[in-house]
Amino acid sequence: MGPELEPGLGDVSAPARLADPGEGISREELALATRNHGLPLEALRYDVTPPGLHYVLTHYDIPETDAARWRLRVGGLVREPLSLDLDALRSLPALTVRVTMECAGNGRALLSPRPVSQPWLVEAVGTADWTGVPLRSLLAAAEVGAEAVEAVFTGSDHGIERGVEQDYRRSLPLGVATGADPPVLVAYAMNGGPLPPQHGHPLRLVVPGWYGMAHVKWLREITLTDSPFTGFQQAQAYRLRQTAADPGEPVTRIAPRALLTPPGFPDFMSRTRVVRPGPVRVAGRAWSGHGPVTAVEVSADGGRTWSDAVLGTSDGDHPWAWRRWHHVWTAVPGRHLLTARATDAQGGTQPLDQPWNRGGFANNLVQRVAVVCVDDAGPA
Amino acid sequence: MGPELEPGLGDVSAPARLADPGEGISREELALATRNHGLPLEALRYDVTPPGLHYVLTHYDIPETDAARWRLRVGGLVREPLSLDLDALRSLPALTVRVTMECAGNGRALLSPRPVSQPWLVEAVGTADWTGVPLRSLLAAAEVGAEAVEAVFTGSDHGIERGVEQDYRRSLPLGVATGADPPVLVAYAMNGGPLPPQHGHPLRLVVPGWYGMAHVKWLREITLTDSPFTGFQQAQAYRLRQTAADPGEPVTRIAPRALLTPPGFPDFMSRTRVVRPGPVRVAGRAWSGHGPVTAVEVSADGGRTWSDAVLGTSDGDHPWAWRRWHHVWTAVPGRHLLTARATDAQGGTQPLDQPWNRGGFANNLVQRVAVVCVDDAGPA
Repeated sequence: MGPELEPGLGDVSAPARLADPGEGISREELALATRNHGLPLEALRYDVTPPGLHYVLTHYDIPETDAARWRLRVGGLVREPLSLDLDALRSLPALTVRVTMECAGNGRALLSPRPVSQPWLVEAVGTADWTGVPLRSLLAAAEVGAEAVEAVFTGSDHGIERGVEQDYRRSLPLGVATGADPPVLVAYAMNGGPLPPQHGHPLRLVVPGWYGMAHVKWLREITLTDSPFTGFQQAQAYRLRQTAADPGEPVTRIAPRALLTPPGFPDFMSRTRVVRPGPVRVAGRAWSGHGPVTAVEVSADGGRTWSDAVLGTSDGDHPWAWRRWHHVWTAVPGRHLLTARATDAQGGTQPLDQPWNRGGFANNLVQRVAVVCVDDAGPA
Repeated sequence: MGPELEPGLGDVSAPARLADPGEGISREELALATRNHGLPLEALRYDVTPPGLHYVLTHYDIPETDAARWRLRVGGLVREPLSLDLDALRSLPALTVRVTMECAGNGRALLSPRPVSQPWLVEAVGTADWTGVPLRSLLAAAEVGAEAVEAVFTGSDHGIERGVEQDYRRSLPLGVATGADPPVLVAYAMNGGPLPPQHGHPLRLVVPGWYGMAHVKWLREITLTDSPFTGFQQAQAYRLRQTAADPGEPVTRIAPRALLTPPGFPDFMSRTRVVRPGPVRVAGRAWSGHGPVTAVEVSADGGRTWSDAVLGTSDGDHPWAWRRWHHVWTAVPGRHLLTARATDAQGGTQPLDQPWNRGGFANNLVQRVAVVCVDDAGPA
């Protein structure tokens, strides 16, 4: 390895690609899947997801942070730049919001062709109670200049992605950043306790209704700018593109989705579900970042025929959290494919065929759960 | 799907198999990887692993449990059968033990040929402070009969595996179950709080020094028997076999292993590490279920030459937890393969070539971390 072969950043970080037809999950995709994790679907039973069951995606490494010395700086086009420690943030009026958060790449590994990235099936979701300072209060205190159009959020996780060395950084349009509904939070607590390291300790952004990439973790800086942010995570990643050359539309709010808790019990390896004949309660959750969920339908024949599920009471206190639903299905011996489909107040619903883009983002294809009904005596 | 095609349990649950040469990770292996999760290796920095970063493997589903109505029964060959609720257990003298726990299948996905099961790379580990009642006290209170040879532990997770419908169930020889060093615990707290659902809420067995399969979660019954247990998880799974016909030896204690925190920063997709030239602190943890770790060596050339790492102070209070180590490596531009190797007080160490068996168990092949040292100006 003489100096003529010295590697550069471009040698460790390849462009995005699609898997070849029939190509199995690669070692690289597996390395992401063993680090990051989804919600085991039986955990849909909890209104608020217990720590360790909420999905997590970390782009680079979880940084080592020190809450006692942490500062959040608000700068750029502001008249009163801020530099706040945790005590200062905790002394401000706070808000707690229950938020269902979903990774924009949820469902990616089921797409064909498969975009090669974090290989989620359907489980990249979770719901938490986030407590923090409304971003609009901080921006008001900083006196944002009239020429500002965006707020750029910088996290402390550092890495290289598609050849670009970076700290994780994303922006929001000023209207979203200063909005009251949803209220964007600078959150310092999750489910009543300090943020766990993997959820952004000690501070993260929470943007109810938006996919996870907007909720910048390990938040250390907010910068007001007079032009739209063109950094990697905004202009290259998280775009809905059909071709590599397509500039695409940005990924923003969460598309409607219902998930069901797979009924019965699983086979360890195939995760196929086994039920015995008779009434089977099929329950789950549904959510949308575009408005309240107004209907969930269930199919036991892979989407040929549908029944209306019973929706849980609409919980006005938690408009940004998932909604409970259930349906009683009468199982008969044989193989079945259970499916659920959510519709929101905007009329948005879930497709039965994959909505494909090169990043595998915002894909809300219906979930399909293979169930085998076995007519034997059951366990002794 | 007429009655003549009605499926049975055998149709949903296939025998164990090895992946074909070059076969990618299957959808089934991926489904396990998205449910279960490892320790992101940067979390080796924490003495005690924060919730959500400790590895988790759930064979079936996380069961729904009710601590208020939970009972632990101790029966079989005892003179005084017990049925204890959580309050009764919490009123007994308790012990807190810091334990490094590792999945017996850690490293499986790196084996060739690859056993098809939960596809761990090297990250299926974590360390927690477990609090509970010493099992030997409970067995003493139950007055175990002289003819008893094993204690069988039954969890509440129900599923089917390789065609066998079962509750998860494992045994320990009576000498291990009643041992004081390590002390086996019936644990009701993890890191000072109630057990999280995925770690066995409200009760689990903790067997310091043994691989994870022994630490039965959602523990509801302990049965003393006069013959060795021959259930699925003891006699079929968790055996070290070279062929399918080989009865094999049981998997028991944890083989020595060192892991290093990958230095520098990662590429998102390949997880290749980037460092810049100069001194790089390489730090990690090492552990063994056979005795204290007495040496860790580090290699920056894939195992051709080795340097001794500096071991952290031996912590007599935590003999069943991992030990900290570090080494300063001087990085020069080019590609490097970092490796670490632990040796324990019994003289056990880690192989440079894979120790292979059909289940991919107890495989303590050295970790290899690809690092690229790039000689550029670095970030602005």
